Amino acid sequence: MTSFSIERITVSDVRYPLPPGAGSDAVHTDPEYCLAVTQLISAGGTIRGTGFALTLGEGNRLVCEAIDMLARPLQGRAIEELMADFGRTARELANDPMLRWLGPHKGVVHLALASITNACFDLWAKNRGVPLWRLLLDLEPEQLVAVLDLSYLDELLDEGGAIELLRRELPARAERSAILRQGYPGYDTSVGWMAYDDDKVRELTKRAIDKGFSAFKLKVGSADRTRDLRRAAMLRQCAGERSTIMFDANQQWTLPAARVICAELSKLKPLWIEEPTHPDDMGAHAALAREIAPVKIACGEHIPNRVVFKNFFEAHAMHYVQADCTRLGGVSEFLAVGLLARKFGLPIVPHVGDMGQIHQHLVLFLHVAVGNEAVFLEYIPHLRSHFAFPAELEGGRYRTPQEAGASTDLKELRT
Amino acid sequence: MTSFSIERITVSDVRYPLPPGAGSDAVHTDPEYCLAVTQLISAGGTIRGTGFALTLGEGNRLVCEAIDMLARPLQGRAIEELMADFGRTARELANDPMLRWLGPHKGVVHLALASITNACFDLWAKNRGVPLWRLLLDLEPEQLVAVLDLSYLDELLDEGGAIELLRRELPARAERSAILRQGYPGYDTSVGWMAYDDDKVRELTKRAIDKGFSAFKLKVGSADRTRDLRRAAMLRQCAGERSTIMFDANQQWTLPAARVICAELSKLKPLWIEEPTHPDDMGAHAALAREIAPVKIACGEHIPNRVVFKNFFEAHAMHYVQADCTRLGGVSEFLAVGLLARKFGLPIVPHVGDMGQIHQHLVLFLHVAVGNEAVFLEYIPHLRSHFAFPAELEGGRYRTPQEAGASTDLKELRT
Repeated sequence: MTSFSIERITVSDVRYPLPPGAGSDAVHTDPEYCLAVTQLISAGGTIRGTGFALTLGEGNRLVCEAIDMLARPLQGRAIEELMADFGRTARELANDPMLRWLGPHKGVVHLALASITNACFDLWAKNRGVPLWRLLLDLEPEQLVAVLDLSYLDELLDEGGAIELLRRELPARAERSAILRQGYPGYDTSVGWMAYDDDKVRELTKRAIDKGFSAFKLKVGSADRTRDLRRAAMLRQCAGERSTIMFDANQQWTLPAARVICAELSKLKPLWIEEPTHPDDMGAHAALAREIAPVKIACGEHIPNRVVFKNFFEAHAMHYVQADCTRLGGVSEFLAVGLLARKFGLPIVPHVGDMGQIHQHLVLFLHVAVGNEAVFLEYIPHLRSHFAFPAELEGGRYRTPQEAGASTDLKELRT
Repeated sequence: MTSFSIERITVSDVRYPLPPGAGSDAVHTDPEYCLAVTQLISAGGTIRGTGFALTLGEGNRLVCEAIDMLARPLQGRAIEELMADFGRTARELANDPMLRWLGPHKGVVHLALASITNACFDLWAKNRGVPLWRLLLDLEPEQLVAVLDLSYLDELLDEGGAIELLRRELPARAERSAILRQGYPGYDTSVGWMAYDDDKVRELTKRAIDKGFSAFKLKVGSADRTRDLRRAAMLRQCAGERSTIMFDANQQWTLPAARVICAELSKLKPLWIEEPTHPDDMGAHAALAREIAPVKIACGEHIPNRVVFKNFFEAHAMHYVQADCTRLGGVSEFLAVGLLARKFGLPIVPHVGDMGQIHQHLVLFLHVAVGNEAVFLEYIPHLRSHFAFPAELEGGRYRTPQEAGASTDLKELRT
């Protein structure tokens, strides 16, 4: 197989203003969706691997500068050789002695690693001319595990254990592959942004129902608790008793406040309450998880690395694992979290900092190869027009992407 | 009281090469000590508040750029008015909607907050013409609590509880103030850097004993386990049975590896083993804390915020709290952690990213006003020559600083 070499590395600070109110939540009143984009370009510009991390404002340029520093060792590397052993590279980049102090494995430097890693996986799939989900499914268990850095998970999941897990699931792959034809179910986050008024939420929910969605999320955590409760009840009524609804507080509540309001919200039978309090507060999440049962806790969009996920899993502090490959150290660490979650029997329901572009590949892989329950994948449409191959939904399901790569190409950055 | 206004804000990326081997540990093979410095300058340049965060290499400039963005709201503020209510400002800066996604409350943006906050406290103490420890001791409990952001600690320590804690300790202050005359005990980290050969460790330990130190730390976590054990035994022998020794693995071990080597190292009766594994791995720290008793666990230099400390405290995952006001959101969050640690009966033994300059003030305050056990304060001499008022030790004890401010003035940045 040809193995293109990385001749040039470019970094782009790309910012997209959003329509009024879109993207707003309890802590982000007026966000811009910003992408810190890494491009790995082969000799002659023949192929171009694109990866990115999401941020929500001007801090995006810090991530871009971190990419500049962190990506240097990839210069000149041949993609197949690089990916044959990517776990080691991921570990070395994550532990760069000049930058490690700034994390470690969190914040700006880890977002930079996400962008770089995602570009590597896109380039790899393009080098092979297949969509990322296909590439991942075609790897032998040993090859798949070689792209992971499992350090600090050792006592629960080492390389041998990961290979065994993948091997054990091989016989079930054929049946689970049906999802490649059916499409992965989606849910619509864009009906319920914080700044949308009641009429708009109602209208968007109706439209989403007409498009085939049956699961909807509402932002809560407003300063006015009665507003939260009114809108939550409205969403339940509008979506119907048999639909799935979720509430997302975006970390706004203290534990005592969360206890009070979650008890109220639980009466509306949401599937989950998301990020009820500070994302680092594992103890508070674990306490709430016990107290609001059978309603579940979802979180993970601000959990920076596999070590913190491991701790949340062991503490029973979450039920739905909202890992995000644009927050974790890219596709590689996302997959490590996916394998670990399977060991704990917890479904991965990604937060889509990538608008679902990369994650549509990853959830297909995790369902078919690892047996992750195909609950659904978040859908946020606001950046559709900027992607060369935007995720397509039909009847509320993601259509399985067929183009080579990780669906990360941005129209503005194709040449 | 005059209240100087902040007329100009400057940011400096200051880097100090270290002598060969100094600062080296299991994960930082060849560090530079870099300071991301904030200066808040009053009208006419009459006074200048200096704060900084430490980093270990070229990533320092990312922190400097984050300071540039984050410090803008301080422009034009009068220092006394700002500090009368600093808890609110700290919370607002920490939740800047444009930058919050990059953390939250960790990594580059939080290091930037540390630098800014520390500059505010230095300016405040200079405005009053007193050393920072004196300023803090002179505040009424209500005034002290007003500089703290206790959000997300609510269920354990709210404003009322913090005031009560401070008030309860008032009668004991007079007796504890003896430490202001005696000086705060120090311990010497600089005898045992990873790259130092055995002879050098021996020689430096002897010299430190001659200077009056009775506690010494050695870097472990080398790839060669027999080297670790040999050097550990050598330090014990060299320091003597009655001295206090500590071992610092700088996160190098996985949990299974830590279990094996900590069992060996414990035979040498160290006071603590520091950062045995990944700093985010609360569960692993809690497991080791149980298993290596009576040897203790110390950690905290990479714990980014009060919420994570709260979780470690509740999980019994550390015994010695190595909070660092150049990692946490500055003096303000450090003090919040100090109060919380007191509630758990855990001693604060700071990691000195500031080389002890600011922390000498803070441990004096915590001992006198809060009753924190005066175990000792780390001492690292490598930047002495760069400070206008370097910490002075005599007979192994920090001499209580008398100059106005937080002892953060750097010679190069005084005009």
